[in-house]
Amino acid sequence: MTSLPDDLLITAADEVKIRQDLLLVSLGKRPADRSLRVGKLLDVHSRTWMHDQEIVMRGRRIAWVGPAGEYQGQVKERFHEPKLAAVPGFGEVHKHIESSHLTPEWEAALVMPRGNTWTCEASHEFSNVDGPHNLEFWLTARQAGSPLKVFPQPGSAVPPTAYEWGGGYFGHDEQAKFMAASPMVTGLDEVMDWPAVWNPENPSHQRLWGMIEATFAARGVVEGHGAGLRTLSEINAFAAAGLASDHEMMTADEAWDKLRHGLFIEIRIHSMTEIVTGLLQKGLVDWSQVAFATDDRSATLTLETGATDHNIRTAIAAGLPAEIAIQCATINPARHMRLTPWVGSISPGRFADMVLLDDVASLKIAKVWADGAQISEGTTFIGKVPDIAWPAWATRTINIRRDITPEDFAIKAAPGRKTMQAAVIRPFHWHPDFYTMELPVEGGEVQRLESENLTKFAIVDRFSGEGKVAKMFWRGCGPRDADTAVACSVAHDKHNIWTCGSSDAAMALAVNTLRETQGGWALVHKGKVTATVRFEIGGLMSKRPAAELDADMQALYRAAEAVDWMYEPTFRPRWNPGFPERLMFATLTCAPWTWVLVAPSPLAPEGFVNVSTGEVHPVVW
Amino acid sequence: MTSLPDDLLITAADEVKIRQDLLLVSLGKRPADRSLRVGKLLDVHSRTWMHDQEIVMRGRRIAWVGPAGEYQGQVKERFHEPKLAAVPGFGEVHKHIESSHLTPEWEAALVMPRGNTWTCEASHEFSNVDGPHNLEFWLTARQAGSPLKVFPQPGSAVPPTAYEWGGGYFGHDEQAKFMAASPMVTGLDEVMDWPAVWNPENPSHQRLWGMIEATFAARGVVEGHGAGLRTLSEINAFAAAGLASDHEMMTADEAWDKLRHGLFIEIRIHSMTEIVTGLLQKGLVDWSQVAFATDDRSATLTLETGATDHNIRTAIAAGLPAEIAIQCATINPARHMRLTPWVGSISPGRFADMVLLDDVASLKIAKVWADGAQISEGTTFIGKVPDIAWPAWATRTINIRRDITPEDFAIKAAPGRKTMQAAVIRPFHWHPDFYTMELPVEGGEVQRLESENLTKFAIVDRFSGEGKVAKMFWRGCGPRDADTAVACSVAHDKHNIWTCGSSDAAMALAVNTLRETQGGWALVHKGKVTATVRFEIGGLMSKRPAAELDADMQALYRAAEAVDWMYEPTFRPRWNPGFPERLMFATLTCAPWTWVLVAPSPLAPEGFVNVSTGEVHPVVW
Repeated sequence: MTSLPDDLLITAADEVKIRQDLLLVSLGKRPADRSLRVGKLLDVHSRTWMHDQEIVMRGRRIAWVGPAGEYQGQVKERFHEPKLAAVPGFGEVHKHIESSHLTPEWEAALVMPRGNTWTCEASHEFSNVDGPHNLEFWLTARQAGSPLKVFPQPGSAVPPTAYEWGGGYFGHDEQAKFMAASPMVTGLDEVMDWPAVWNPENPSHQRLWGMIEATFAARGVVEGHGAGLRTLSEINAFAAAGLASDHEMMTADEAWDKLRHGLFIEIRIHSMTEIVTGLLQKGLVDWSQVAFATDDRSATLTLETGATDHNIRTAIAAGLPAEIAIQCATINPARHMRLTPWVGSISPGRFADMVLLDDVASLKIAKVWADGAQISEGTTFIGKVPDIAWPAWATRTINIRRDITPEDFAIKAAPGRKTMQAAVIRPFHWHPDFYTMELPVEGGEVQRLESENLTKFAIVDRFSGEGKVAKMFWRGCGPRDADTAVACSVAHDKHNIWTCGSSDAAMALAVNTLRETQGGWALVHKGKVTATVRFEIGGLMSKRPAAELDADMQALYRAAEAVDWMYEPTFRPRWNPGFPERLMFATLTCAPWTWVLVAPSPLAPEGFVNVSTGEVHPVVW
Repeated sequence: MTSLPDDLLITAADEVKIRQDLLLVSLGKRPADRSLRVGKLLDVHSRTWMHDQEIVMRGRRIAWVGPAGEYQGQVKERFHEPKLAAVPGFGEVHKHIESSHLTPEWEAALVMPRGNTWTCEASHEFSNVDGPHNLEFWLTARQAGSPLKVFPQPGSAVPPTAYEWGGGYFGHDEQAKFMAASPMVTGLDEVMDWPAVWNPENPSHQRLWGMIEATFAARGVVEGHGAGLRTLSEINAFAAAGLASDHEMMTADEAWDKLRHGLFIEIRIHSMTEIVTGLLQKGLVDWSQVAFATDDRSATLTLETGATDHNIRTAIAAGLPAEIAIQCATINPARHMRLTPWVGSISPGRFADMVLLDDVASLKIAKVWADGAQISEGTTFIGKVPDIAWPAWATRTINIRRDITPEDFAIKAAPGRKTMQAAVIRPFHWHPDFYTMELPVEGGEVQRLESENLTKFAIVDRFSGEGKVAKMFWRGCGPRDADTAVACSVAHDKHNIWTCGSSDAAMALAVNTLRETQGGWALVHKGKVTATVRFEIGGLMSKRPAAELDADMQALYRAAEAVDWMYEPTFRPRWNPGFPERLMFATLTCAPWTWVLVAPSPLAPEGFVNVSTGEVHPVVW
């Protein structure tokens, strides 16, 4: 018997060697490594329980499943959990691990005790920071032995719109190479730029359709993002385009219409209760085209509420039978992503990933197995966290080769003017028009107006080295205290640095602090740095346990409580009072966004652009 | 607006152009070609009916689906069927069109009025006749305008075992080229040679796993064939090997075990009632991993009983709700084969293939639409049958460059012997051992023994040009009349010529007749040819309407009624008295076959070989 592949990254050639060996174990002709006997086991293909089953394993895979005592081969080591119920390892159909702000090996330690053993990584965040290293980045932890199976999908939004740049560029040829590089690449990450999809005049039209073409050619899945697309015309057009799924539904009616027009629906936590309840009320009994998606969730929130397990529990609480809810996080997403040979069920040939439940109805997790070994006890991860020496391309991504100065944030007035007209938006400002306000001029510069809840908001390019700055006035989202600013290197989806502050000097200090930490959060209060959180990997993630990161986040929140923050809500669920953490998402450029501030570019010289039309406008005039 | 692709063969580049245009029609920004308003429409994703719906079409695709009157664009031509219920065009998940004995354009005319608008063609029959032209053959009719979507799967059984040769050879490189050639190639046709899969010593092991590797690498589906594999060990090993499906289940228990070990189950007609009834009794409510398969069905039988519609009706009669039965022939197989962007539902982006039912419960078909146009009225096909000038590689496949003579079938005795021991088998002889009988010698040749129900059976190679002959004595399957023989160029799966007769001269005449007709059936009765049926395309199919072919088959059956046929059953469902039509399948070499007669080869010089072990044996000694 020759040595077997390590079975970490999936390759077609390794599959042959692994399965040739595995089936001989199934037949009892070669010894198995381990077996796990359980009180009952959920077969998600038939949605039926099988009692007193033994799962026989070889290496990281399942070789045999059947009634305890019936396996005919030798087993080196046997485990028995007579009181526990085994269900398949949970899968994420659409997740940005970047939003946990943990590197993949530490993401594993966080989510795997919560049952999440495989993740379709919608990678446009890191893709936008370092496109060329994207695939390498996502496969590194697994290759080093992490038990979390990460299936990366190259970002379709690289750049997010034609008005953004730097970090990466993905078109047809790049996607063709990704699809050819690994069968772990399942397809194309959520297609978000709907104007670029439908409008032939849009400058991203060709690039985006080139990626779609390369995905179709390689039998991949083209994931969708249908935020705000709720009319029958739009839903039909979205499906006609070949976009296979949506995870942006807000209501049961929207989910119902999308499901019934051929979209695979991926329900997220904030709309889960409403959608699941509503679909049940509409009489949905066939849930085979439904999955649950985490999308973005911070490590802090996962520690508080849970990971995929929280999604399933929420669906159960909304009335979905537990077995169906488990299918929505196992076989359904695996089938949609065409990953059934590897994940999604407790069946021969698949990775031996099992969640062992004390209680099914409450989804109480006792232990998790992955890759044929127990990797958690309660919520404690006991599996391998490889120590990865992330290279400079991952650790040095705040590329600003100069000090940022207060002058970088000055907004100059036209000569001789006492006031200027200013274009103003609010976070999550999804209107076709911006506001226009008259602002005072002092010392040749247009001034903030605290009485009108106005701060400055700026984007500092972190890719060119030059630290180009776009800036304008925003409403209802910044510090009211003097000389106070916050900056962050997570600015969906392009991930330049955003900063928001009551003085240009505080904004400069906050950004320069991030240059030193290589990303994360920096809070400047009354002229002094009062908190930082380090996201030193890609400026998005940190290589450390979730609890350590959370402790830093809690310190940031406490420091932020000392600050008086403006608040002026627009779209309620999206914008909360207090520390403006969600400004991380306020620079999105996908539908339904309209006017957005991006780093200065040839197509938007001041950075202020309507991304749905391409129109640009001066920030003051 | 530039001209659009013809949208017959699917290519990734064409998909882009078609969908870019289509979504503008969905949005009402470009005019639609046609619309069809129906009384109700089955959404197979949610398994719910939608009432008074309009299906708006552009070219061959669906642009929009929704409540009648709500489409916002222009429609050139509108149709209204207020009393009819629309369900998606039916799909075949596993079919050998060769077994209809019609070329694909005439298969379309036969099956499409019965609702079958797309077919996954398990192509190992034609692959074995002309491997290099296999893909071209299967795409020709569609390219010429036939509305039937044929999705070819290259045969894994080319050759069926290492003991057969000629016509084609498919290994890793061939499969890699097929997968790269067209997204219509969904994966690998049923892997049948189980001994070659599990046993590293089997001479086909490397070839077969090479094809599996190439299929995994291209994200294709590896189809299985699990005949006779019913123990838990075997079912586990089959799934562990990565074989995704089975269509060979005979009982509900077998189907249940296979379903619950991760195999997609494809139920065939002869076991449909038992399996469906049994699965319902076991409490199966989630049928998402179930499809119906026609596999092999002659045009004659289809004319009598139906095509895919017959499968669905049989399932409904067995107690399956009609809507679930329809899912088993639409979305379920489409999802399994990863074809959901194109077929399986009445949704935007898919081909506009709709079956219009007078009555759902009885599946009474009124009309069928395909490619956005009505193609049948009742069972009358009114669509396009392209007139294809099939080239010589398709029409000249009986390659025997000499006259076959009676001496070719002589079985020589050892010098001086009065009797010889002979190895004897019966059709569908699935035992590990052959029978041994003592047979008389006359004129130096071993003789038939009518009193023991013994005829000669022979295989004549039709690939090398030399007409090599393997022959032996078979029991209970040939003519009792003198000077009588039957020959056929359909001899699963290698498709040499088989002949069976009471005299060597009659056998020679029958085979020589097939040389002239280039394939099909030849019946020689008492020294004269009394019937022929022409399968002039690949020796397997005929280019003509089903009714014409059927008329010839009926003439053959009538001529065969004049013959006294031996009968000695082995495995009841497989072998019937009278004209031995099923001898077409008696030369299969896949599991559970053991001793088989194949054309002489280096690995089996007399052609008599146990295909499960590789053992060979003289036919007399």
